[in-house]
Amino acid sequence: MRILKSAILLFSLLLFFNAGSQTDENVIKEIYKQSLTNGKSYDWLNYLSNQIGGRLSGSLNAEKAVAYTKEELDKLGLDKVWLQPVMVPKWVRGFKEYAFIESEKGKTTTVNICALGGSVATPALGLKAHVVEVKNFEELETLGKENVEGKIVFFNRPMQADLISTFQAYGGCVNQRYKGAVEASKYGAVGVIVRSMNLRLDDLPHTGSMTYDDLPVSKRIPSAAISTNDADLLSTMLKLNKSTKFYFKQNCKQLKDVLSYNVIGQITGSEFPNEYMIVGGHLDSWDLGDGSHDDGAGVVQSMDVLRLLKETGIKPKRSIRVVLFMNEENGLRGGKKYAEVAKQKGENHVFALESDAGGFTSRGFSFDCSDASFNQVLSWQPLFKPYLIHYFEKGGSGADVGPLKTNTNVLAGLRPDSQRYFDHHHASSDTFDAVNKRELELGAATMTALVYLFDKYGVPVTKKSQLKK
Amino acid sequence: MRILKSAILLFSLLLFFNAGSQTDENVIKEIYKQSLTNGKSYDWLNYLSNQIGGRLSGSLNAEKAVAYTKEELDKLGLDKVWLQPVMVPKWVRGFKEYAFIESEKGKTTTVNICALGGSVATPALGLKAHVVEVKNFEELETLGKENVEGKIVFFNRPMQADLISTFQAYGGCVNQRYKGAVEASKYGAVGVIVRSMNLRLDDLPHTGSMTYDDLPVSKRIPSAAISTNDADLLSTMLKLNKSTKFYFKQNCKQLKDVLSYNVIGQITGSEFPNEYMIVGGHLDSWDLGDGSHDDGAGVVQSMDVLRLLKETGIKPKRSIRVVLFMNEENGLRGGKKYAEVAKQKGENHVFALESDAGGFTSRGFSFDCSDASFNQVLSWQPLFKPYLIHYFEKGGSGADVGPLKTNTNVLAGLRPDSQRYFDHHHASSDTFDAVNKRELELGAATMTALVYLFDKYGVPVTKKSQLKK
Repeated sequence: MRILKSAILLFSLLLFFNAGSQTDENVIKEIYKQSLTNGKSYDWLNYLSNQIGGRLSGSLNAEKAVAYTKEELDKLGLDKVWLQPVMVPKWVRGFKEYAFIESEKGKTTTVNICALGGSVATPALGLKAHVVEVKNFEELETLGKENVEGKIVFFNRPMQADLISTFQAYGGCVNQRYKGAVEASKYGAVGVIVRSMNLRLDDLPHTGSMTYDDLPVSKRIPSAAISTNDADLLSTMLKLNKSTKFYFKQNCKQLKDVLSYNVIGQITGSEFPNEYMIVGGHLDSWDLGDGSHDDGAGVVQSMDVLRLLKETGIKPKRSIRVVLFMNEENGLRGGKKYAEVAKQKGENHVFALESDAGGFTSRGFSFDCSDASFNQVLSWQPLFKPYLIHYFEKGGSGADVGPLKTNTNVLAGLRPDSQRYFDHHHASSDTFDAVNKRELELGAATMTALVYLFDKYGVPVTKKSQLKK
Repeated sequence: MRILKSAILLFSLLLFFNAGSQTDENVIKEIYKQSLTNGKSYDWLNYLSNQIGGRLSGSLNAEKAVAYTKEELDKLGLDKVWLQPVMVPKWVRGFKEYAFIESEKGKTTTVNICALGGSVATPALGLKAHVVEVKNFEELETLGKENVEGKIVFFNRPMQADLISTFQAYGGCVNQRYKGAVEASKYGAVGVIVRSMNLRLDDLPHTGSMTYDDLPVSKRIPSAAISTNDADLLSTMLKLNKSTKFYFKQNCKQLKDVLSYNVIGQITGSEFPNEYMIVGGHLDSWDLGDGSHDDGAGVVQSMDVLRLLKETGIKPKRSIRVVLFMNEENGLRGGKKYAEVAKQKGENHVFALESDAGGFTSRGFSFDCSDASFNQVLSWQPLFKPYLIHYFEKGGSGADVGPLKTNTNVLAGLRPDSQRYFDHHHASSDTFDAVNKRELELGAATMTALVYLFDKYGVPVTKKSQLKK
């Protein structure tokens, strides 16, 4: 099956362009072939990563990315390409953060930190305090105000290495980062340092969003991530000497919301133009790396889905949109805005697929859908087997497409291999060289194949009559 | 299933050490946990790659690797560790190769080449000749002596990018490298340049073995690999100007065979000590990189299989050996010697597993075995599902274990994700930093799980009576 001898290829191509006679097997084979031999995703990612770079919401780079991706979509000959305005938060990091551990007066060790997205600054001259290390919020509660007040809380629960899904390991830790300041503030802490969400031991701090909920400004304490190596160092030094102090300085700032955009392109459906199927990723990224895996990969793969449909001569029955969402990382404003506008316009979104888990070898999809839809997907498994796509599970889809959820539609998330993802996630190591061209292209093809099948066979619960299996 | 809450973990550990009551699920979970939280493979690979480096057969580094791995196996408390002597070929690269394209007199462009393993040197002052480009041996035959004599033959058939298995793409190209000199020599060519076996476009030449078969010394022409970028450049320049010349200089040399060793460690079986099950990889590597993926990964994973069996308290019924083969790359002497000695001693090898496809996320295994054995493996699939191991196919196993094949035994090869392998294979980019710790450890655990199951349930065709399913 997987060896394309030229004769067979020619024959299958002839079959292919004799519309009607092509089998799903042949169409999908052609999709993969196009992506692996003539894909655009890697070139687009190269530009996005190396010519633009990190694309924090509200930054100049984010606006450059909007302009670039719109321009590239314009070249594809889609039926419609447009920008959807959305107000986004603008947080700026300011100068590079600086931190040290002071084991005794005058004896300091510089460590690697970065401000968490959304954090306030330290005082201009920095903040120095004793440190209390905890693994979780329960431990913090047990310590209580008497042990925490006036100190820096150091959240040091590592990601659980024996979980096969690194996203599960992330899920088991990320509340330290997101809610740490709110919790520590309750007991009078003056700052928060969080172990980076990273399964490796290295020197890179990993940023990410945090919240103050409805804390008054006076209670908002500065929060930063520390590299895993330095987290271990700090922990060891605290064990040796409980009166060890920590100093850090950052001047990040939350500014006023600014205008930005979702970028949208559409192929209008030939039979059911008012049924919408979308593929997307998020255009914004954190600022430390160039956002190649998170989520440049998802952006360029989604763009390539529409290009691959055209290249392989597929004329979708339903309207297929690529949506490049703005502000997934620190606000989800783009995802919310897209769903809000869709609702206003009464657009029926029957299917939405997000790629936001890195540009690694794709293993399958996670589906948020009815049993009927899921059974339909399972019946397609054999079509994906030649491409080693085997993971079809019920579960979450993606943050940006989540607001489109209805009782009847299908939301899906591409699930690439997750082992390396958190080596790069939100860190300076999320760069173009960490993306493999073939792995990226396999993802674009896998997404296109799923879109092709859902377009052809429809979503069972909503459109039982269109099921031609 | 995959979230190990501490309570459940404790409970399952208690169960686990109450021998007899543990389920296969629990044993395998513990194997993965040990590998991912307490694995040794990555540390061993770090030493092998960064303290020793490339380990070409017959080199000082190869001998260092023999000594190091034996020493490490000695520390594991196995029942027996020993060296198995084997004579190996010794080919030396000599000084760094040099090459340029001469489009017209005095106008040269330096390009990246490396001698193929086993090649003879060029004349001391190098070799310059016109070039004839072909895609395959048929094209060469068509051109015939009148178009080839006195020229350098440039084999430029690229790896086929639309094959999902990059090993298949390799298989479709590698005859240019291995047999190119023999074929070109028939028509009076003076040298051979081969496009590197690499799916990327980059500047790295990839070496690998070649043969002269029984050509007389006078007919042996020097052969080198050229980087993919430079292959494209040369091809373009030849299209523009057929009288383009190519110059290269290399002083590699085949020396006399030297003594080396396979390194072997054994846990003796408690019930069937005379049934042998082996896991292995090859200790030698090419010399351009440090051989981390090919096959440092397989070596350290195989070593860790025996350690993980011990760590998880498994007492095998059969004798389990780790075999670190010498000279897979350019002679397979280690694999042949091991099989020869096994035959002499009448050792019954019921199972052999090789890891020689890179230290990437493991996807499954390929099996060379009877239908009965394969059906048994398929019945174990659900045990591997939590670890995303899904690929169980009949096919080849590995070069080193191949000589052990009988009608009744099971040979298997670990099948990691193959997308990135040929970015590194036999090139200077096959280095430690290209190996991800978790991906390596997942492979070691996956191998251990398979060994555990085959040891427990036996190989059906040979030992029907021992099947307790």
